[in-house]
Amino acid sequence: MQVSDIGLIGLAVMGENLALNLEDKGYTVSVYNRVHPDRESVVTRFIEGRGRGKRFHGTYTIEEFVESVRLPRKIMLMVKAGDPVDELLGQLVPWLSPGDVIIDGGNSDYHDTERRVKMLEEKGFYFIGAGISGGEEGALHGPSIMPGGSEMAWPLVKDILQSIAAKLDDGSPCCEWIGAGGAGHYVKMVHNGIEYGDMQLIAETYSILKRRTGLDNDGLGDVFEQWNRGELNSFLIEITSRILRYKEENGDYLLDHILDVAGQKGTGKWSVIASLDEGDPLTLVSEAVFARFMSALVEERERASKQYPSGKVGDMKTNIPLNHEGIEAVRDALYAAKLISYAQGFSLMRRASERYGWNLDLGTIAKIWRKGCIIRSVFLERITRAFHKNSSLENLLFDAFFHEKMEDALSALRGVIVDCVFNGIAAPCFFAALSYFDNLRTLDSSANMIQAQRDYFGAHTYERTDTERGRFFHTDWTGEGGKTVSGTYNV
Amino acid sequence: MQVSDIGLIGLAVMGENLALNLEDKGYTVSVYNRVHPDRESVVTRFIEGRGRGKRFHGTYTIEEFVESVRLPRKIMLMVKAGDPVDELLGQLVPWLSPGDVIIDGGNSDYHDTERRVKMLEEKGFYFIGAGISGGEEGALHGPSIMPGGSEMAWPLVKDILQSIAAKLDDGSPCCEWIGAGGAGHYVKMVHNGIEYGDMQLIAETYSILKRRTGLDNDGLGDVFEQWNRGELNSFLIEITSRILRYKEENGDYLLDHILDVAGQKGTGKWSVIASLDEGDPLTLVSEAVFARFMSALVEERERASKQYPSGKVGDMKTNIPLNHEGIEAVRDALYAAKLISYAQGFSLMRRASERYGWNLDLGTIAKIWRKGCIIRSVFLERITRAFHKNSSLENLLFDAFFHEKMEDALSALRGVIVDCVFNGIAAPCFFAALSYFDNLRTLDSSANMIQAQRDYFGAHTYERTDTERGRFFHTDWTGEGGKTVSGTYNV
Repeated sequence: MQVSDIGLIGLAVMGENLALNLEDKGYTVSVYNRVHPDRESVVTRFIEGRGRGKRFHGTYTIEEFVESVRLPRKIMLMVKAGDPVDELLGQLVPWLSPGDVIIDGGNSDYHDTERRVKMLEEKGFYFIGAGISGGEEGALHGPSIMPGGSEMAWPLVKDILQSIAAKLDDGSPCCEWIGAGGAGHYVKMVHNGIEYGDMQLIAETYSILKRRTGLDNDGLGDVFEQWNRGELNSFLIEITSRILRYKEENGDYLLDHILDVAGQKGTGKWSVIASLDEGDPLTLVSEAVFARFMSALVEERERASKQYPSGKVGDMKTNIPLNHEGIEAVRDALYAAKLISYAQGFSLMRRASERYGWNLDLGTIAKIWRKGCIIRSVFLERITRAFHKNSSLENLLFDAFFHEKMEDALSALRGVIVDCVFNGIAAPCFFAALSYFDNLRTLDSSANMIQAQRDYFGAHTYERTDTERGRFFHTDWTGEGGKTVSGTYNV
Repeated sequence: MQVSDIGLIGLAVMGENLALNLEDKGYTVSVYNRVHPDRESVVTRFIEGRGRGKRFHGTYTIEEFVESVRLPRKIMLMVKAGDPVDELLGQLVPWLSPGDVIIDGGNSDYHDTERRVKMLEEKGFYFIGAGISGGEEGALHGPSIMPGGSEMAWPLVKDILQSIAAKLDDGSPCCEWIGAGGAGHYVKMVHNGIEYGDMQLIAETYSILKRRTGLDNDGLGDVFEQWNRGELNSFLIEITSRILRYKEENGDYLLDHILDVAGQKGTGKWSVIASLDEGDPLTLVSEAVFARFMSALVEERERASKQYPSGKVGDMKTNIPLNHEGIEAVRDALYAAKLISYAQGFSLMRRASERYGWNLDLGTIAKIWRKGCIIRSVFLERITRAFHKNSSLENLLFDAFFHEKMEDALSALRGVIVDCVFNGIAAPCFFAALSYFDNLRTLDSSANMIQAQRDYFGAHTYERTDTERGRFFHTDWTGEGGKTVSGTYNV
C-alpha cells in the first residue's frame, strides 16, 4: 500500500523540521528512523509529538518504509554524513524499484556524492546530492537547497524541492539545479566555508567593538541592529544583535556566560582542502577554521594571556575609544572584508566548475542563497547582478559596483586593522582580507625571490620576465652545482 | 657477485648527488635508473660523467642491480614520490632476501610510508622512510636526514646514513632515528612546511625593504649579509644576499628578470592538511602556500594592479623611507614572525606525536636541522635548548628565552605591519604571525559569539563559563525552535 508522496529517513533536528515542512506543503510523508532497542522509538515520539494529527506515515522497518512510498519513489536521507549514508544505501537498494530517486540532504563530502551518483545510476536508480542550508528554522520554514547529481531525476523532484524551499520576494524558489555529480554538495561546502568566514568576521567585529567602545551588550546589539538596516542586512547580523541582547532569567546576558570554545563539523576544513586542490587562495575561510581550532586551545590561551598580558604599544592615541565615525569605519571594514571573502569563495567555485565541467551558474547560486540559508543577505543580490552582467567574471573585486564599494571602504579597512594592531586585538580574518587584497593588486610580487631560492638550493628552475611563459631556466648560482635540474625525474 | 655496500635507484639531481656523497664516504654503490629506450642511458651518462673513476657499479636491470648489493641489502630509492615508489617496490620485492632494507629518501606522503612499512615488514623486509633535506648541494656535501619506520633496521643503516649526513661543529651527525611508521616523512613534511614559511617571510621582507628603502639589490644584499652575522644567521638568509647580488653577463641583476610565479611540489599543502587533521593552527605555512597560488594568478594580478593602482592611505608620514632604525625594526619583526612560525610547526609535531604514539624528541629534531637542511640556522639551537629544558613545552612562545625575544621584538612587528598596511604592501605571513600571537594571548576570545550563532541557527549547543567543561546547553533563542539538538543524530 503505497500511500506517501515522499519518504524521509532521519529524524534529527534537520530531518524532523524538513518532514514538517514537506507535510505543510500538502505532501504525505513516510518517516523512518533507526530503531534503538534501548530507547523509545524516535518515530513514535515524532508521530505522537510534533507530527501529531498530520499526514505522516510512521514506519519501523526499511521494507515497510520503502513499500509505503509511491513510485517512482522519492526518498530523502537526513542522516549524518559519511558511513551512515553508505550503510543506509546498502539497506535501501534491495527494496528499490528502477527509477527511484534517493536524495541525500546531509552535508556529504562531494567526493562521496560523485561516487554515489555513479554507484546508484549503475543499478538503475537516481541519486541527488542536495546541499540544504537554513539550519533548524530554515528547514522548517524554507531552506536554500542546492541539488546536484542525476540530472534525469530533476524533473521528478523539482516541484517538491522547490515547494519546501525559501522564496524570494518575487516568489522564485531558493532551489535550482546546480550541476552533475557532486556539484550540489560542492556548492554547499563552499557556502559553509563562506559561512565560517562571515561568522568569524562578525565575531572579530564584536570583539573590536566590545574592546574599543564603552558599549554594553545591549548597546552593541543596537549597533548590529542599525547595520542590519543597511547594506550589511543579513541573517547573521540580525541574529548577532538578538544574541547580544538575549538575557537569562536572572537578567545576565547569556552571551557572557557562553564558553569561547567553538566547535565545527568539517565543511570549513573541506573548503580549505578544496582550495588547496584548486590552487586558489581561500585565506579567510582558512583563518576562520584555524581561529576555531585556537579557541579550543584553552590551556595554551590561558598561559599565553598570563605570559603576554599586554599587546599594546606606544601609539596611545589609538586607545581613545571609538566614536560614531570609528564605529562606522568598523562597519565599512566589515563590508570590505566580507566582499573579499566572497570574492575568494566564488573564485573557488569558478575554478572547480571548470575542472569538473559543472558549468556552474554563479549568479543563480548567489540568488538561491538570498533567502533560507545561513548566509542570506541583500549583499548576495549584488553578486547575482555582477555575474549576470559578466558570467566569466574572474573575481568579484573586478565588478564595477564592488570596485567602487572597495575603494570607498579600503581606508576604513586599513584604519581598523591598524587600530587592532596597536591595541593587540586579534582579527585574523580582517588581516587575511587585507593581505589578500594587497597581494592580488601587486604586479611585481616578491615570488621572484622564492623562485630564485628554489632554483638556488633545489635546481627547481625559474621562468623569466624577458622570455615567453613556459620556458624554464636553471642557474648554477654557486658554481658548484651540476646541470641536472630537479624538474626532470628519471625514474 | 655482490660487490656493493649499498644500492641507489634514481639518478635525478638528489639521487646523483647522494650517490656521489656515499661513494665519497668510502662505500661502493650500485646505481640503477629506469631505462628510456629512446634516450641515452642515465646510468651510462652518470658512470662516464660525474661518476667516472669512482666506486660505482652501473646496472641495467632490477635483477642485476639487486644481485650486485651485499646482504643484508640496503637499497635507497631516490625517485619521485607517489606511484613510482610503489611501482618500484613491486619490481624489487621478487628479488629481495629476508632482512633486506629499503630506504625511501624521497618526499613521500607519510600516509604512504605508514602503509609501506607494514607492507614490507609483512613480507619479511624492512622499510625506512627517510626525509632528506638539503637540496642539490646538501645531498652532495651532507644533508639532514630524518629516518623513520622499521626501527629493527636502524642499526643496519645507521652508520651509512650518519656518515653521509651533515655534521654539527661537535661532529654529531644531522641524522637520528625519528620514530615508527611514517614519523620520518611526517617530520620532513613539517620541515618543508616551515621552509615555505621561512621563504615567504624572507620574500615579504625583501618586498618591504625594496619598497620602503632607497636601496638597490646590492644594498639589500648587504642588509641580508649583515643580518646573517647575527641571530638570524641561516642558510636561507645567506643565499638571499647572494641571490640579490647575482648579476648576469650583461650586468643586470638576475633576480629582476626572474618571473614572480612560484612553483611548489606539495609538501607545504600536506602540512596544512595535516594541521587541519590535528586541529592545530598552522597559519603561516597556509598563507605561504596561498601566496604561491596567488603568484600564479598572473592575469588576475595584472587586472587588479590596474584597477586598484594605489593601496596607500592618508597617513603620509609612513611614506618616509625607512632609515637604519626602520631596517632594524624589519629585522626584529622577521625574527618574531619566524619564531611564531616555528612555534606553530613544533606544536603540530607535538600533537602528531601524541596522536600516533611516535614519542618524537623535538629537541633532537631541531638539532638535526641545525646543519645540512634548507632551514638550517643558529636559531634552531635555541629551540633544541628550549625542548631539552622542558620536553613537554606546549608552545615555543612559553620558553623563557623566546618569551624575552618576543617581548623585545613585538613592537617592531606591530610597527612593520602598520607600515605595510598604510603603504599597501602585501605581507600575509607577517600579518598571520601577529594575529596568531594576539589570538593565542586572548583569554576571553570572541568564539562565544560563534557558539551562540551555531546554537541559534543549528541547535549545535554550547558550553558555559559557569559550569564544568563537557556539559552542553541549548537555548531556544527564538521561542519557535524545538528541544531537539543537532549533536544527537538518530540514524
